[in-house]
Amino acid sequence: MRATFMHGAGDVRVETVPDPVIQQPTDAIVRTVLACVCGSDLHPYRSMPAGGRPDPMGHELVGVVEEVGSAVRTLRKGDLVIAPFAFSDNTCVFCREGFQTSCVHGGFYGSPETGGLQAELARIPLADGSLVVVPDVTPESAGAGVLASLLTLSDVYLTGHHAAHTGQVEPGKVVTVIGDGAVGLSAVLTSRRLGAERIVLMGRHATRTDLGRRWGATDVVAERGAEGVARVMDLTDGEGSHVVIEAVGLRPAYEQAYGVVRPGGIVSRVGVPQYEEAPVGFGSLFGKNARLAGGPAPVRAYQEAAIAQVLAGEIDPGLVFDAELPLDAAAEGYRLMDAREALKVALRP
Amino acid sequence: MRATFMHGAGDVRVETVPDPVIQQPTDAIVRTVLACVCGSDLHPYRSMPAGGRPDPMGHELVGVVEEVGSAVRTLRKGDLVIAPFAFSDNTCVFCREGFQTSCVHGGFYGSPETGGLQAELARIPLADGSLVVVPDVTPESAGAGVLASLLTLSDVYLTGHHAAHTGQVEPGKVVTVIGDGAVGLSAVLTSRRLGAERIVLMGRHATRTDLGRRWGATDVVAERGAEGVARVMDLTDGEGSHVVIEAVGLRPAYEQAYGVVRPGGIVSRVGVPQYEEAPVGFGSLFGKNARLAGGPAPVRAYQEAAIAQVLAGEIDPGLVFDAELPLDAAAEGYRLMDAREALKVALRP
Repeated sequence: MRATFMHGAGDVRVETVPDPVIQQPTDAIVRTVLACVCGSDLHPYRSMPAGGRPDPMGHELVGVVEEVGSAVRTLRKGDLVIAPFAFSDNTCVFCREGFQTSCVHGGFYGSPETGGLQAELARIPLADGSLVVVPDVTPESAGAGVLASLLTLSDVYLTGHHAAHTGQVEPGKVVTVIGDGAVGLSAVLTSRRLGAERIVLMGRHATRTDLGRRWGATDVVAERGAEGVARVMDLTDGEGSHVVIEAVGLRPAYEQAYGVVRPGGIVSRVGVPQYEEAPVGFGSLFGKNARLAGGPAPVRAYQEAAIAQVLAGEIDPGLVFDAELPLDAAAEGYRLMDAREALKVALRP
Repeated sequence: MRATFMHGAGDVRVETVPDPVIQQPTDAIVRTVLACVCGSDLHPYRSMPAGGRPDPMGHELVGVVEEVGSAVRTLRKGDLVIAPFAFSDNTCVFCREGFQTSCVHGGFYGSPETGGLQAELARIPLADGSLVVVPDVTPESAGAGVLASLLTLSDVYLTGHHAAHTGQVEPGKVVTVIGDGAVGLSAVLTSRRLGAERIVLMGRHATRTDLGRRWGATDVVAERGAEGVARVMDLTDGEGSHVVIEAVGLRPAYEQAYGVVRPGGIVSRVGVPQYEEAPVGFGSLFGKNARLAGGPAPVRAYQEAAIAQVLAGEIDPGLVFDAELPLDAAAEGYRLMDAREALKVALRP
């Protein structure tokens, strides 16, 4: 089969490798209908040292079940499925508490053992927990828009949703979303659905912030850093935001976040932090009783409700895709996203 | 009057200064019945450079109203009152949201303008918001135990209460409290009242942890650092604590906190952080969706309920006081607490 590998910064290659096979009775093999490139894939695209072991890439996929292991109970060949970006048994203590990204038996795609999902075929561990069936739909009947929206449930839309959910967005709240990438825009969409009174989107790319406005942003702030903080404080009469969603993962975004959060408010992070230490003391979070929340989104917890909303036409998160390429052109997909010529690129084998 | 000043590390003096007078029509003058030394007073006691301007000390007080400004509406001469450790108008937008420590007109005691509360008399700004009347009680009728418990509502008990409250302690939860000082013990008391199933107290001073057990600690862990983390993880079957209350304020305590918090759990800090930066990335908080909460306790928000509980004999937080000295012996009070010969020292003018 064809599969995507990162050999070093800027060096993405689609290569022919052996088809994956069932290794454990709980595995399934899925044939990819649609995969995509994630904003978090751009971190190694910008920084991975060359010359080491290539990394298999991709953790988002809509596909069709090709084969199941003998212990798999809930899936059948031909089912249309979504793969949440982390695999999990969905039965352990942390899964039952809704934190499937901390599953005691689970893990993340992209290791040599599990491979990546930017590939024609994928071996999915713990398939009963790790795959979610889209009921009564086939790739042919779904239509391109619905397929794209279902693909966002692998990660990007539900990561934005997680940010709003763990930020406790509710009616009457002022929400600031930092980052106009696909996750930030998804957080705008969920915040509006949760009833936010005002949604300030911090971003500077008009085509993206236009989608943000369509999804519910009431204000757009293009400034960054201290200037951006001052603008948001002005917009909120000097009070700050009840909820700040940080959908970037870089430290300047974190600093903006605690700068605009209101006393007693919540900073909810879903951009994978590219830093380990950051301010949390009296001058940043502690002094104003600001809370810090977020983490890798347990998207498995939100699947059933979100699938129903997509199929009912209530949400259209697939609009974040503004380019689709053949899988073999994955390198071009990375280039487009890295250059910000595309918001999010779908890959079709 | 006599009042307490810090001249430098280890150098506390009680000095004669002019009596405070009404400066604003919203001020009140209060005659101290009982004041005390706070764990946070020990930070400058250990680190304040000598030779600069002496700082007036103290932010906890039970007293009797001596005089009120012309705009004060809710207080009368002779009222027994508690002074929460921050003054606030209790009417601004943040006060109404329950974060009086972020009052837009408020502030903290111990500046040259407002003075400290380890003194015979105190000028209380914004007195209608900053003082809470204890109804139907006089210093004489209250009894020493009740007076001591009322004094803890200035800060220490309600700071522990805030930690448990913002940590969302509820029935069925495992709570770990880091620190066996008066705040940590108070957090144990509140956690038990909120229904925690299990309360692990991390501390190594038997007289303190004994009070912790009396108030509801089910386990005591004396080890610190990696050893302490391992012990708590063992006690929780490797799962960690739903809530971790950090009542120390030093970075090693913070590191213990994220080490023992369960995926999706909350680290609630009320020890004033003696650090600004700390780990918050994938390896500490983010990876397991752990939340960080806490800050200077808005104790004003909790006064009425707590006063009723003290007067009804439902709680006895005054047990944290194990020494009482005349105000003039304040320096000895600091020494006793710094040397851990006393848990908390009351000062009586």
